[in-house]
Amino acid sequence: MGVITRQEQDAGGKGHAALKVFVVLAHPERRSFNGAMADAAVETLTDLGHQVVVSDLYRLGFDPVSDRRNFISARNSEFFKQQIEEDHATDVAGFAPAVAAEIAKMEAADLMIWQFPLWWFGVPGILKGWVDKVFAFGRVYGRGKFYETGLYRGKRALLSMTTGGAEKAYLSDGFNGDINGILRPIQRGMLQFVGFDVLQPQIVWAAAHLSEEERKAQLAAWQARLAGIAAEEAIPVGRY
Amino acid sequence: MGVITRQEQDAGGKGHAALKVFVVLAHPERRSFNGAMADAAVETLTDLGHQVVVSDLYRLGFDPVSDRRNFISARNSEFFKQQIEEDHATDVAGFAPAVAAEIAKMEAADLMIWQFPLWWFGVPGILKGWVDKVFAFGRVYGRGKFYETGLYRGKRALLSMTTGGAEKAYLSDGFNGDINGILRPIQRGMLQFVGFDVLQPQIVWAAAHLSEEERKAQLAAWQARLAGIAAEEAIPVGRY
Repeated sequence: MGVITRQEQDAGGKGHAALKVFVVLAHPERRSFNGAMADAAVETLTDLGHQVVVSDLYRLGFDPVSDRRNFISARNSEFFKQQIEEDHATDVAGFAPAVAAEIAKMEAADLMIWQFPLWWFGVPGILKGWVDKVFAFGRVYGRGKFYETGLYRGKRALLSMTTGGAEKAYLSDGFNGDINGILRPIQRGMLQFVGFDVLQPQIVWAAAHLSEEERKAQLAAWQARLAGIAAEEAIPVGRY
Repeated sequence: MGVITRQEQDAGGKGHAALKVFVVLAHPERRSFNGAMADAAVETLTDLGHQVVVSDLYRLGFDPVSDRRNFISARNSEFFKQQIEEDHATDVAGFAPAVAAEIAKMEAADLMIWQFPLWWFGVPGILKGWVDKVFAFGRVYGRGKFYETGLYRGKRALLSMTTGGAEKAYLSDGFNGDINGILRPIQRGMLQFVGFDVLQPQIVWAAAHLSEEERKAQLAAWQARLAGIAAEEAIPVGRY
């Protein structure tokens, strides 16, 4: 017990190499609690010496509709099949600038954080469309690379979100059902599918009903967690 | 056993009153198999005497980004909180025309069919954003109305979709996991949440890998099912 653990040695994150962190924010109101959570992450991670890049999808004016607009190239200009166009765009650098920029940010990152409100048991449409466009066949997955052989093995990802309902609504016997089941399509079907290790989600329950003091406590808890993020382990797949 | 069952009596659907059916299509390529499935539904249901309305989201140019653009009214022009604006818009007819039109189509329907490719374990971003905007607090749910007390009780909904992977990938021990778990956030979190009874999903597995003959067989099976759709029972919640 007298041994100095990795966590202790790295308290404050100073013992780790600087991480490249990519924060994707998806909330229409910049001054929302989701916005504050994103700001808190940027502040804390930057203070720790990590490099942080943010894609604030609403302020970027990100267009989440996925079709030919994703590309500047065309493999088949008669019939649109997205995977075929993605595969071709991978070879000819044919992604539209707005898509290519997001892919580049994701590729550069050691850790990706999605900050969003849980809407209809999922990510907001603007973020779902971001995934549809940015998780491109050939470049991000496929050609035999997915899950355990995913191109993004070694990278980590984390969902940081707010809910409308209280925590008890998201238990196995709650009226919405187990939150782990609700998040499975995101954590398994999107993040693990392309190879990310998934960290425990950061969930602020019933955010709209919190007092100002409770929100400050939630922000502080998030910042405290982020201080040790470099040493965090992925949650096992079996938990989903 | 000599009793004529409701199903037999209503074979062909002629014994039922005409249904109002709302088909929402979400695929970028109009000539895709998803487009053909939508066309097959319209043809069959119309032939049976049902009234069919289609929202072809890509051809409508539906904008799936959810924010102030959803409204022509504003309850609070300083700080945007979507539920509050939806609640207010419900009282003052403040929904933007593109949103109001979709709500009206959904309200008029006895049966809603979503036709889409399963992308990243979910609906395409354009359809997720449609839900974010159209399933409006006050008008479509809330004020104490959800699940068993949902405003849409008595209406039915059905997911008709294509997958990239084969059926075996979507079994409990398949590498993607049980399709019922994957669809739960949609069938439970969106459709049942607002009161819809959910019918068995229509799934065409690995659609891109089917031969022309297999696709015709899938279209015929879909049309055969739709011929008896008026008499179909909802799938139990416990199956999710």
